[in-house]
Amino acid sequence: MSARPPILVDLKFDPETVARILKTAFPDRGSINIADPASKNRDLTGIDYALLWKPDADLFTRAPNLKAIFSGGAGVDSFMNLPGLPDVPIVRFVDRSLTTRMSEWVVLQCLMHLRQQYQHDKDQRARIWGKLVPPEAAEITVGIMGLGVLGQDAARKLKIMGFNVIGWSRSGKEIDGVETFGAGELDEFLSRTDFLVGLLPLTPETTGFYNAKLFTKLRQGGALGKPVFINAGRGKSQVQADIVAAVQNGVLGGASLDVFAVEPLPSDDPLWGLENVFITPHDAAVSDETALFRHVEHQIARYESGEPLQFIVDRQAGY
Amino acid sequence: MSARPPILVDLKFDPETVARILKTAFPDRGSINIADPASKNRDLTGIDYALLWKPDADLFTRAPNLKAIFSGGAGVDSFMNLPGLPDVPIVRFVDRSLTTRMSEWVVLQCLMHLRQQYQHDKDQRARIWGKLVPPEAAEITVGIMGLGVLGQDAARKLKIMGFNVIGWSRSGKEIDGVETFGAGELDEFLSRTDFLVGLLPLTPETTGFYNAKLFTKLRQGGALGKPVFINAGRGKSQVQADIVAAVQNGVLGGASLDVFAVEPLPSDDPLWGLENVFITPHDAAVSDETALFRHVEHQIARYESGEPLQFIVDRQAGY
Ligand SMILES: NC(=O)c1ccc[n+]([C@@H]2O[C@H](COP(=O)([O-])OP(=O)(O)OC[C@H]3O[C@@H](n4cnc5c(N)ncnc54)[C@H](OP(=O)(O)O)[C@@H]3O)[C@@H](O)[C@H]2O)c1
Ligand SMILES: NC(=O)c1ccc[n+]([C@@H]2O[C@H](COP(=O)([O-])OP(=O)(O)OC[C@H]3O[C@@H](n4cnc5c(N)ncnc54)[C@H](OP(=O)(O)O)[C@@H]3O)[C@@H](O)[C@H]2O)c1
Repeated sequence: MSARPPILVDLKFDPETVARILKTAFPDRGSINIADPASKNRDLTGIDYALLWKPDADLFTRAPNLKAIFSGGAGVDSFMNLPGLPDVPIVRFVDRSLTTRMSEWVVLQCLMHLRQQYQHDKDQRARIWGKLVPPEAAEITVGIMGLGVLGQDAARKLKIMGFNVIGWSRSGKEIDGVETFGAGELDEFLSRTDFLVGLLPLTPETTGFYNAKLFTKLRQGGALGKPVFINAGRGKSQVQADIVAAVQNGVLGGASLDVFAVEPLPSDDPLWGLENVFITPHDAAVSDETALFRHVEHQIARYESGEPLQFIVDRQAGY
Repeated sequence: MSARPPILVDLKFDPETVARILKTAFPDRGSINIADPASKNRDLTGIDYALLWKPDADLFTRAPNLKAIFSGGAGVDSFMNLPGLPDVPIVRFVDRSLTTRMSEWVVLQCLMHLRQQYQHDKDQRARIWGKLVPPEAAEITVGIMGLGVLGQDAARKLKIMGFNVIGWSRSGKEIDGVETFGAGELDEFLSRTDFLVGLLPLTPETTGFYNAKLFTKLRQGGALGKPVFINAGRGKSQVQADIVAAVQNGVLGGASLDVFAVEPLPSDDPLWGLENVFITPHDAAVSDETALFRHVEHQIARYESGEPLQFIVDRQAGY
């Protein structure tokens, strides 16, 4: 039995953490960390599997014989357009902890907007005792775009917190207690939505999708007066200038953004300073390296024993 | 059939709202609003029922023949020590909407501490892209003190958000998925708690209860390093100077406070400006007047038709 080739790792996460956790990961076959200077001129033609997040542009040229690709996150947009992407299975990262963390973020943002945390915070800094009596969760309809692994978990938890929850996705869905809308029912869905939660993958169809025109279709005059836009999908799905304008001209009452067209968000971007806008630095649901490496090991074991891989990306749909 | 005496109302809520909603409330018997100047010298000796929140000190002297007293909130501490409190049933306010709002507040505060919202907010104001990787909810144990109507609802929702939840109350309780501790197991409960959530009523036993000694018994070195104190019960249950000291000397990593020994919290109080401390102005769960008046009407109807009153306060226990 010939030695198994190591796993190629190109994860643009925190380099120290990746290096540290890789030390004990993949004991059966080892790994090549592309961030390691020693890998610079290494021959990668014999590599079977790659684990990638924002990989080098020449990655697929250097490793042309991959049998399967694993994404370091739930999304795969960071390498779908790279030259030489081979026609092999692409597996995305689905993980209980990742899902839980995303729902923590979504519920936190919805509650901050519901309970007017921005105003409370301002009052606190000014030492003002400013009692607020916001609506209760049941008076707000949260519309979730994207009812995949993350959207469904968020929907369930928002529902339990008392929000009215509706959802939208490409194909129709049946979710207990959540009214769902298909791709063709976008306007109806938006007209009922007070808090829009974006949990869509980045694909050609969702690029520039959250724009001025879409924001004007959201419900005006709901229990908080104006709609709120909350996005933790991908930054390139939003037109940031339109978010700024919509908050400034009152089409939106506020926003929560974890993702941006350019990351890090440049320090002169107007989004940082907008009224009732919460910014987080793409840390809504960070992949845990230990869990990620375990997931990849598990999927490779399935693959090599003839079982089907899980969480495979639909190349046609792009996610 | 003689006319029914009106209901005496002394609610130190927002006076305009009370006056407006009283106009159409209690159509069967009407009401006397003590805030109305016309009630100033009115004879109250024939009054059967009073609805109270921080009532005038001479209220019970002026209305000595009450048959039942209704509290405007979940707690009854605002009149339990008033001179002349008659030995009649005291009914507190229990309401789905009040409970939901309290859980919104509790879950919001726990998530803000878990996800380091204070730091994110600071970074945002400084336009700093500061990725944080906090623990996930399951790594944090929330210890709830008071497992009544509010504590149990909060426990259930925190659990669904992924937190590990434990609880403490005078009498033992059985709650699905929540380890509970009785009055005698206080130290054991505290030593396991990362986020202490106070939902206790104010009684002689709970006065000054959250103090320096108690804070030092909370778990140090949990997933966030230091414990956090969250209180939405009553302000007189906490020793505020001890909270300030504990946050400053690092016994506590932060706090969220909705209630204070003196309200409004004076603008020169050090609590306003402490690191990682969130202040809200006793609006965690505001009583909705419409729901409150409906609840009182419903309880009086029960009482007059011979059915037992609900949510009666135990005079001995004081809540
Ligand atoms: N900010 C962060 O930290 C972070 C962390 C993890 C993930 N994410 C983002 O979250 C995204 C969602 O993750 P997931 O695991 O929930 O993905 P998923 O399970 O693949 O779900 C994607 C959902 O989006 C819907 N969708 C895709 N394209 C659509 C379109 N053109 N029109 C309407 N609906 C469309 C899908 O519809 P169908 O159900 O009909 O297929 C599905 O419901 C990821 O792709 C990633 O970009 C962000
Ligand atoms: N901040 C706000 O906006 C707001 C709004 C509403 C209410 N509140 C406060 O929240 C409090 C709780 O409301 P609730 O409706 O949940 O009351 P509840 O149903 O009467 O529950 C009180 C809980 O506290 C426990 N308890 C009382 N004294 C105790 C003691 N000495 N030692 C240990 N446990 C003790 C009780 O134990 P047992 O179960 O053994 O009786 C019970 O579990 C109210 O009294 C009020 O002060 C605040």
